[in-house]
Amino acid sequence: MNPHGSTLLEGAPARLEARPAVRALPTSKIREIANAGFGKTDLVKFWFGESDAPTPDFIKAAAIEALNADAVFYSHNNGVAPLREALADYLGGLHGKGFSPAQISVTSSGVSALMIATQALVSPGDEVVVITPVWPNVTQIPAILNARVTRFALSPSAEGWKLDLDRLLASVTSKTRLLVLNSPGNPTGWTIEADDQKAILEHCRKLGVWILCDDVYERLTYRPGPSTAPSFLRITEREDRVISANSFSKAWLMTGWRLGWLVAPPELEEDLGKLIEFNTSCSPVFVQAAGIVALRDGESFVAGLRDELRAKRDFLTGRLGALKGVVAPPPEGGMYAFFRIEGEDDSVSLARRLMEEARIGLAPGAAFGPEGEGWLRWCFAVSDARLQEGVRGLEAWLSARAG
Amino acid sequence: MNPHGSTLLEGAPARLEARPAVRALPTSKIREIANAGFGKTDLVKFWFGESDAPTPDFIKAAAIEALNADAVFYSHNNGVAPLREALADYLGGLHGKGFSPAQISVTSSGVSALMIATQALVSPGDEVVVITPVWPNVTQIPAILNARVTRFALSPSAEGWKLDLDRLLASVTSKTRLLVLNSPGNPTGWTIEADDQKAILEHCRKLGVWILCDDVYERLTYRPGPSTAPSFLRITEREDRVISANSFSKAWLMTGWRLGWLVAPPELEEDLGKLIEFNTSCSPVFVQAAGIVALRDGESFVAGLRDELRAKRDFLTGRLGALKGVVAPPPEGGMYAFFRIEGEDDSVSLARRLMEEARIGLAPGAAFGPEGEGWLRWCFAVSDARLQEGVRGLEAWLSARAG
Repeated sequence: MNPHGSTLLEGAPARLEARPAVRALPTSKIREIANAGFGKTDLVKFWFGESDAPTPDFIKAAAIEALNADAVFYSHNNGVAPLREALADYLGGLHGKGFSPAQISVTSSGVSALMIATQALVSPGDEVVVITPVWPNVTQIPAILNARVTRFALSPSAEGWKLDLDRLLASVTSKTRLLVLNSPGNPTGWTIEADDQKAILEHCRKLGVWILCDDVYERLTYRPGPSTAPSFLRITEREDRVISANSFSKAWLMTGWRLGWLVAPPELEEDLGKLIEFNTSCSPVFVQAAGIVALRDGESFVAGLRDELRAKRDFLTGRLGALKGVVAPPPEGGMYAFFRIEGEDDSVSLARRLMEEARIGLAPGAAFGPEGEGWLRWCFAVSDARLQEGVRGLEAWLSARAG
Repeated sequence: MNPHGSTLLEGAPARLEARPAVRALPTSKIREIANAGFGKTDLVKFWFGESDAPTPDFIKAAAIEALNADAVFYSHNNGVAPLREALADYLGGLHGKGFSPAQISVTSSGVSALMIATQALVSPGDEVVVITPVWPNVTQIPAILNARVTRFALSPSAEGWKLDLDRLLASVTSKTRLLVLNSPGNPTGWTIEADDQKAILEHCRKLGVWILCDDVYERLTYRPGPSTAPSFLRITEREDRVISANSFSKAWLMTGWRLGWLVAPPELEEDLGKLIEFNTSCSPVFVQAAGIVALRDGESFVAGLRDELRAKRDFLTGRLGALKGVVAPPPEGGMYAFFRIEGEDDSVSLARRLMEEARIGLAPGAAFGPEGEGWLRWCFAVSDARLQEGVRGLEAWLSARAG
């Protein structure tokens, strides 16, 4: 045996494979269904978390201008100064307080922001508590770093997913290194209450536990009132162990650009810069230029997108909820309806049947952990025509099943 | 004490800081000098590993065309099929054998390729042997993943840096998980011999040790003969544990684009795809489009760049080598002269004095590990005028010092 657990014999080569923690990462159950549907041209697809509309022209134009101006060299690890300043200003306006560019680090996507924050904080064996169901990356990143991931489940109900605060506070102890929240959440749309944030922050302050917030859907909030979801950044003070990971992907329709950012205590600026150096070194400057213009000129676009998505949410959950045996709570944020059909408990099998029989492509809830089993995720950030076609497909399938 | 080693007392908050393995990552000694020179407009700078010429227009045009065509959505984790196919063809031509797209994964930079390969293979506590001196990222990436890094030093001489093969083979044992080589090397220009590659591969085959090659300078080889440096990819067979990390940065002048790739056994394709998902998810499709055109239309550009850089290398090392007390072996590859001045053993202090007194910006050899102490790195991928100005500055400084 070599120390990696594989027997090496002459003439019988050991398996070529990645290390155990990586082999143990589950394959995406969304991709499992999507691969089975590959090449089916008559499918109406809602399985991926991406709008079907392209990035607005004014943002693309900024990147093209920067390319023509030869913005093709390395940048500062933590991002170019104008983008860090623009993000500090943007967050200041959003959360009603001051931010310093030293708190901002630009990353090569929102998921890279999560990876780098986790690399900064989490040692092998550390306990990371993650609120679930959640998109797989949030739980897999600490697993790659050999942390121990504790899943804390939200409670489903006909009105949506709820946080049992007392149970969460009991689960986050002095042995916990990091608590990770994604609110508004993917896939549930769960949106944390400001009062719960205060209680969690107070609890984590006492224990010295870090909080990592995946805030990529914060601008896609459908509550009346502020144009952003409740944020830990609004209530943090100078000494708090809170990091926010964010992205241009969802609110500015920039999924393919791979541009994100972190907000962290300035004490971490240098170490985050080192980690960025060793992960991707920097984001392309012409991509950062697009981010600057998105912030500067994009606020009315974001507001319009939110209104559009709210209308799509209302349409979709209204029609789903009117169907017999379907539970479809309207999400308070994000871009997904997370719903279930009575009597259907195997989401992968159900998603496969819906693909084959109803010609609609949905993500199985089990892709987001065992807490999501029995549910289906439907991305509504698509054209109205596509949304209507999908709804008609599901209605017809349910009628046929009932008949 | 909490489990992270910091005392938490009411009213005396613990320090806000990253975990120990990250705090222990050394700050770049290049940046230390460069920061001290910040704002000095009369400096001639050679400290960073980047050409001062922009990306060729035909590559930029491909990205602009793709942006205008709305190539702004997510791609396959391992890269778009046309780029994986183009890379397989390109490598086939370079190394005289067949490659399959299943062996290729596109990454968000060469450093991301190294990070992902290391995440795939290296568990906490594993031993990683790295040939040094070397650019810091190669040793810091396994350190971030809590591996044990063993530095294996090349031997300096007036003719350049040499590998003691027998000593290396004795240092790579059944307890070693991974051997990492960077050839042609940054900062030394050391280029491994094909016979040494064969012996290393044979040794690692017997022990089941993985080999990770940082091949980003392979096209910048100044040996007569093939247009690429000796490569492990040329001699690997189906079952070999060899991964090559590469990048578009150096040979196509695309540093700021953050586009790289991995060549790995196809058995690792799925796990590498998962790791890419959890690191950056994919490279921007419009950046991948630029990579496709770089490969398709860039071969004469690469050949011209190599000729230009060879002439710059000859000019710089010729002038340096003619100076009394200067040892400047011509590098066999890469884009750096790595040289030393007799009687100067503290490279950081020397680099600082050269910046202040000679107005030239060089990277201290200590930035690349203790083996580089006493040496200086000079990037010669700059305009002839700048190179001449720098050489005159050093000559004048040495004359004044001698006088």
